[in-house]
Amino acid sequence: MNRFLLISFLYLFPSGILTGYSQLMNSHPIDSENRVTFTVNAPNAREVKIINLSDPDAMGAAEYTLTKDEDGIWSVQTNPCRPGFHYYNLSIDGFECADPRSQLYFGWGKWTSGLEIPEPTPSFYSPREGPKGEVTTHWYSSSITNTMRKCLIYTPPGYRSQTGVKYPVLYLQHGAGESELGWTMQGKVNVIMDNLIAEGKAKPMIIVMDNGYAADPASPNPSRPEAKDNRFEENLIKEVIPSVEANFRTRNDRENRAIAGLSMGAGQAQRVGFAHLDLFSAIGAFSGGARDFDIETSFGGIFQNVDSFHNRVNLYWVGCGEQDFLYEGAKMQHEALAEKGIQHEWHAVQGSHEWQVWRRHLYEFAQKVFQN
Amino acid sequence: MNRFLLISFLYLFPSGILTGYSQLMNSHPIDSENRVTFTVNAPNAREVKIINLSDPDAMGAAEYTLTKDEDGIWSVQTNPCRPGFHYYNLSIDGFECADPRSQLYFGWGKWTSGLEIPEPTPSFYSPREGPKGEVTTHWYSSSITNTMRKCLIYTPPGYRSQTGVKYPVLYLQHGAGESELGWTMQGKVNVIMDNLIAEGKAKPMIIVMDNGYAADPASPNPSRPEAKDNRFEENLIKEVIPSVEANFRTRNDRENRAIAGLSMGAGQAQRVGFAHLDLFSAIGAFSGGARDFDIETSFGGIFQNVDSFHNRVNLYWVGCGEQDFLYEGAKMQHEALAEKGIQHEWHAVQGSHEWQVWRRHLYEFAQKVFQN
Repeated sequence: MNRFLLISFLYLFPSGILTGYSQLMNSHPIDSENRVTFTVNAPNAREVKIINLSDPDAMGAAEYTLTKDEDGIWSVQTNPCRPGFHYYNLSIDGFECADPRSQLYFGWGKWTSGLEIPEPTPSFYSPREGPKGEVTTHWYSSSITNTMRKCLIYTPPGYRSQTGVKYPVLYLQHGAGESELGWTMQGKVNVIMDNLIAEGKAKPMIIVMDNGYAADPASPNPSRPEAKDNRFEENLIKEVIPSVEANFRTRNDRENRAIAGLSMGAGQAQRVGFAHLDLFSAIGAFSGGARDFDIETSFGGIFQNVDSFHNRVNLYWVGCGEQDFLYEGAKMQHEALAEKGIQHEWHAVQGSHEWQVWRRHLYEFAQKVFQN
Repeated sequence: MNRFLLISFLYLFPSGILTGYSQLMNSHPIDSENRVTFTVNAPNAREVKIINLSDPDAMGAAEYTLTKDEDGIWSVQTNPCRPGFHYYNLSIDGFECADPRSQLYFGWGKWTSGLEIPEPTPSFYSPREGPKGEVTTHWYSSSITNTMRKCLIYTPPGYRSQTGVKYPVLYLQHGAGESELGWTMQGKVNVIMDNLIAEGKAKPMIIVMDNGYAADPASPNPSRPEAKDNRFEENLIKEVIPSVEANFRTRNDRENRAIAGLSMGAGQAQRVGFAHLDLFSAIGAFSGGARDFDIETSFGGIFQNVDSFHNRVNLYWVGCGEQDFLYEGAKMQHEALAEKGIQHEWHAVQGSHEWQVWRRHLYEFAQKVFQN
C-alpha cells in the first residue's frame, strides 16, 4: 500500500498522526534512578540494540541488547545513566540508525539520537522565566570556500530594544562531526547565557557559532581530511567577523573579541586565537588537550615570553573532564603553564568527552571573559 | 567494542569521521533523468526498502526493494523522480527509520529523510548572490499552554541596518506532523523571499512561523487529537503577536498583518483569520480544501455578505495542486466563491500534496499580499 494514501486519512481523521506526534516525540521514560526504558517497535527484526556513542558509564553500558515481547515490541531497561546529554543510536539487525522516538542532533557527521538525563534539581542550563535571548541563522556567501554558509548567532535579552548598546563577541566552535547547530541544540547556549545574564554573572554578549568545516574549494576533494578546515582561519577572519560586525551591534576591538571551542573547536580556537592576538584577547579551550604540546614551540611560541603573553592575553581558559581521553594532554599543558608562571584558568571537572562538561565549561568561561 | 573508544582514534587520526562526514551528508547521486541511486550499508539485513512518503509519482514508485551485492551493500536505481522535495524513509527488515545519509526534516511527527530533486535550471527557490535575510529563533514562555515555546522569524535583507523601517507581518503555518522548522528547512522561505525582494516583486516583510500544535494544558493528555491545537488561536493572538510586535519593528494594524498556512495550517489560517478581521486583512490557504465547505455557513458565515467581505478582506488567496487529495474541495470552494462574485485569488497548479506546490504558493502569495 502506498503510504501517501494514508495522508488523506490522517488529514481527515488526525488521531493517527497526532497521537503519533505525541508518542514519537515523547522521550523514553526515565525512572528515579536514571534507568531508561527503551522500546522499539520492530516485529520483524532479529536483533535490536541500543548503541551508546558516549563512554560506557554515560549510559551504564557500551550497548544494550533488547528483548522482544509477543507483540513484536523490543525493550530494555538500562543501568542508571549519568545526568547530561549522550549520543546514541539504534542497531536493527546490525544496521545503525537514529531512533525515530528521539529528538535528533547533528553529531558523528549525521543526524544522531540523543538522550537527555536531567539533573536531580534545576541546573544552570534549565530554562527559567524571564527575558530570553535569541539565536539567529545568518547566511552569507563565502568566496573563500565557494559555498553558501550560515552561522548561528546568539544575541542576549534586550538586544532588540536597547538599540544604543554594543556588545562584545565570543566566537564559539563545535567539535568534530558536529555543526554550527551543536552549541544551541546540544549545548543549550541560549539557556546558559540567559540564566547567567539574568543573575548578573556574565556580561551580555553576542555569541557567533559558525561551522568549523571550511575547506579549500580548489582541492580535488574539499572534504579530504587534510582539507577539512584548511580555510577555517581565513573564512573566520575575512568573512565571518566582517559580516557579523557589519550586521550586529558589536564592539570591534580585540578587548571585546574572544574565541573558544570544544575538542576540534578547542584546537581551532587556540590556533587561530594565538595567531591573531591583534583581533582576540581571550581564548577558551574546552577539552583542549594536545599530545604534542611544547611550551617553547606550541602555537608559534606564544608561551616563550611570559610578560609578552600577559600583556597580550587577557584570558586563557583551559578545561577538561577528568575522564576525557584528552585529559592527560590538557593537564600536562596546565602544569607546564603553571610551572612557567603563565596566568591561565584551569578547570578540571568530573566528566568525559561530553556535552555536559562543555555546558559547564561555557558556564564558567562566560563568567570570566570580557571582565577586564 | 565500545564505540566511544573510537573517538580518540578519530580525534587523533580524523580521516575516518571526516571522510564519513563527507560521505554521509552527500546526497545519493541523481542522474540526468532524475533517477536516484540509493545505497544502504546493511550487510546483516534480510530486506531493505526505500519507502516513498509522498505520492508514487514523486519518486517513481511507492517503494523500492534494494538488492545486496557481495560486500553487503544494498542498492537500487529509482525510476525518474519529480523535481521538488519528497519525504522518504528506509525500511530495514520492516523497521522504518531515517536514512543516515540524508539531511533530515521534521515531518510525520518525527525526523524524516528528504530527497531534493533539483529543477533543470535555477528556480525561484535557488539561492543567489546578494543581500540575505535572516531566520531568528525567538523563545517565549507561554502561560496559555504552560510550556516554553519558540517561533522562527524571517526578517528581510537590510532589517538590521535600516533601523527606521517598520514592516508588515505574515504569520505562516506548517502542516500536520511538521513543526515551526518546516517553512525554513523544507520550504526555503528565506531563499524565496530574498529572491522576490531583490527583484522588487514582493514587499519586504517579516514572516513569523510558530508551531501549530498549541494544546490546552488542563487536558489530561494535551496531545490527544481533539486538544492538539485547541489553544492555537489564543496562543497566536494573546502571546505570539504581542511578543513579535514588542521585539520586532512591525507595522501594527490589520492592513499590515496576514495569515497563511499549508494543509492543517491552511485550516488554521482560515479559521483564525476570518474570526479576527480586526487583526488580519489577508488570508492564504495553501492546499486549502475542505470537504464540508458551505458558502453560507463556513467560517462564521463570512461569505454571506459580498460587500462586507470585500470591505474587510484585502486578499483571500486559495491554492492547491491538481493532484492533491484536497483538490476537489479547494476547487469547489473556488467555484462557489466565483459564482457568488467574491473576489479571491485561485491558483491551481501541477502537483500533489507536497512542498514543491507550497513553495510555489508562497512565491505567488507573497507577490499579492500587502500590495493595497
